[in-house]
Amino acid sequence: MLGIGDDAAALRLTPGRELLVTTDMILEGVHFDSAQTSARLIGRKAMAVNLSDIAAMAGVPLAAVVSVGLPEQLADSAGEELYAGLRELADQFHVAVVGGDTNRSIGGLVVCITLMGETTARGPVRRSGARPGDWILASGSFGGSIHHKHLTFTPRVREALRLHERYALNAMIDVSDGLAADLGHILEESRCGAVLNAAAIPISEAARHTPTDRPPLDRALYDGEDFELLFTLAADQARGLVADQPLDVPVSHLGSITSDPGMFLESNGSRTPIAPRGFDHFRP
Amino acid sequence: MLGIGDDAAALRLTPGRELLVTTDMILEGVHFDSAQTSARLIGRKAMAVNLSDIAAMAGVPLAAVVSVGLPEQLADSAGEELYAGLRELADQFHVAVVGGDTNRSIGGLVVCITLMGETTARGPVRRSGARPGDWILASGSFGGSIHHKHLTFTPRVREALRLHERYALNAMIDVSDGLAADLGHILEESRCGAVLNAAAIPISEAARHTPTDRPPLDRALYDGEDFELLFTLAADQARGLVADQPLDVPVSHLGSITSDPGMFLESNGSRTPIAPRGFDHFRP
Repeated sequence: MLGIGDDAAALRLTPGRELLVTTDMILEGVHFDSAQTSARLIGRKAMAVNLSDIAAMAGVPLAAVVSVGLPEQLADSAGEELYAGLRELADQFHVAVVGGDTNRSIGGLVVCITLMGETTARGPVRRSGARPGDWILASGSFGGSIHHKHLTFTPRVREALRLHERYALNAMIDVSDGLAADLGHILEESRCGAVLNAAAIPISEAARHTPTDRPPLDRALYDGEDFELLFTLAADQARGLVADQPLDVPVSHLGSITSDPGMFLESNGSRTPIAPRGFDHFRP
Repeated sequence: MLGIGDDAAALRLTPGRELLVTTDMILEGVHFDSAQTSARLIGRKAMAVNLSDIAAMAGVPLAAVVSVGLPEQLADSAGEELYAGLRELADQFHVAVVGGDTNRSIGGLVVCITLMGETTARGPVRRSGARPGDWILASGSFGGSIHHKHLTFTPRVREALRLHERYALNAMIDVSDGLAADLGHILEESRCGAVLNAAAIPISEAARHTPTDRPPLDRALYDGEDFELLFTLAADQARGLVADQPLDVPVSHLGSITSDPGMFLESNGSRTPIAPRGFDHFRP
């Protein structure tokens, strides 16, 4: 492998596998407040969100290129801490940082990472494969990520690979925009609808116990940046999965895919339509 | 190929080829002045510099992901023009834009592109392969790119592929930092030195005729952003190449690789050492 020190990096993929590519840019004042967040956590998050996208395809992450715009007023050590934060997570997932571009910035801090991975022998899991009758499943819990988890989450790379190996996943996404919004993406790409069981939505401790004027269920549905796996699977396999709990994190049965379009929340026997609206970057 | 509309793009490479990856971030106020440069040309340049890096490896460009931070005060049409500018060049080189991330920016405009390509059956051309006795060759001419060419150049993708097909290129780089600086990169990676013939350096019209207090040769050596190919080739093959002129752009013989370290400029029989210093982002 040719790394930094040439015009481009050169990588050899496993023969027969597809290349997976994802990119994310995070900007000061939009995605983080550098007065409140350490450079190490900013770097970590920039890598983590990309890893989460490769996880959502049930891919194996391989290599990343990292571009950074550093404000002049930022201490030299901040740049180093930022790289340390992203490298730490990269190392955990055996991702090689093979290139990049460091610039000064007259605006705020900007980090842009492109992560490459490869599919397993079973291919990628797309958003578009959900089928009526599938159970809607999710890892972990939702809501209130802004308090902590959006900076410290561990991307569900290993969990996705384990699920993909054992079950015939029909569709998968990682929850970044929000549970409702990202389920909406699956429904749109799969051309179907869904009914969620309000009582079955796994609500995080942060959403339950952090004071706010919004009910916990609302936060679980709309907050976003949970970076959990949301996926669908034929009912017979899904029933087995929920019984077996094959991951270190709980897998919950949130509802079902329907052939009728639309997204509905079922509570005490009545169904109300819910909007696939998403994460608001402008929220406090 | 899975494009935008999933968590990651999925691509299939030609079996047996290596993946090439390069990334560049360009920032307002550092790499361009958006008061003086149209959004279309900014987008075009962001794609062009990446294409030039794949050209420098003698690779075939395939697919790009594009991340953008758009200031709120920027007109909506500016974002569209930026994409139009980069897509236009992508189309010319059969590059698919397979993903990206559009954000608002509270700082200036930021564009980050990662371009992927693949090697030909002959593999990549590295910076590290120059050998004593090689001729140092370059496409086109140098200096004064700031006046026009740095925004409008056509990346030498086709030229690099043609050269790589016909000749056993030992080392290659694209000139972004400057002729002297980028030759310095080849020498460093190849652990050798070079003698350049002052009279043989191809000086651009812009460097010759734009009023400045710096001599044209100085501009050709240090200005940078010429985005020409600088490469080395065994003398016997190089002699044939210069005689045949296989490209639509002139190829010049600038000097030779030496086993002794250091970089020298030969003029009227005397040699003076030159520094591999580079492009200065702060220049007017």
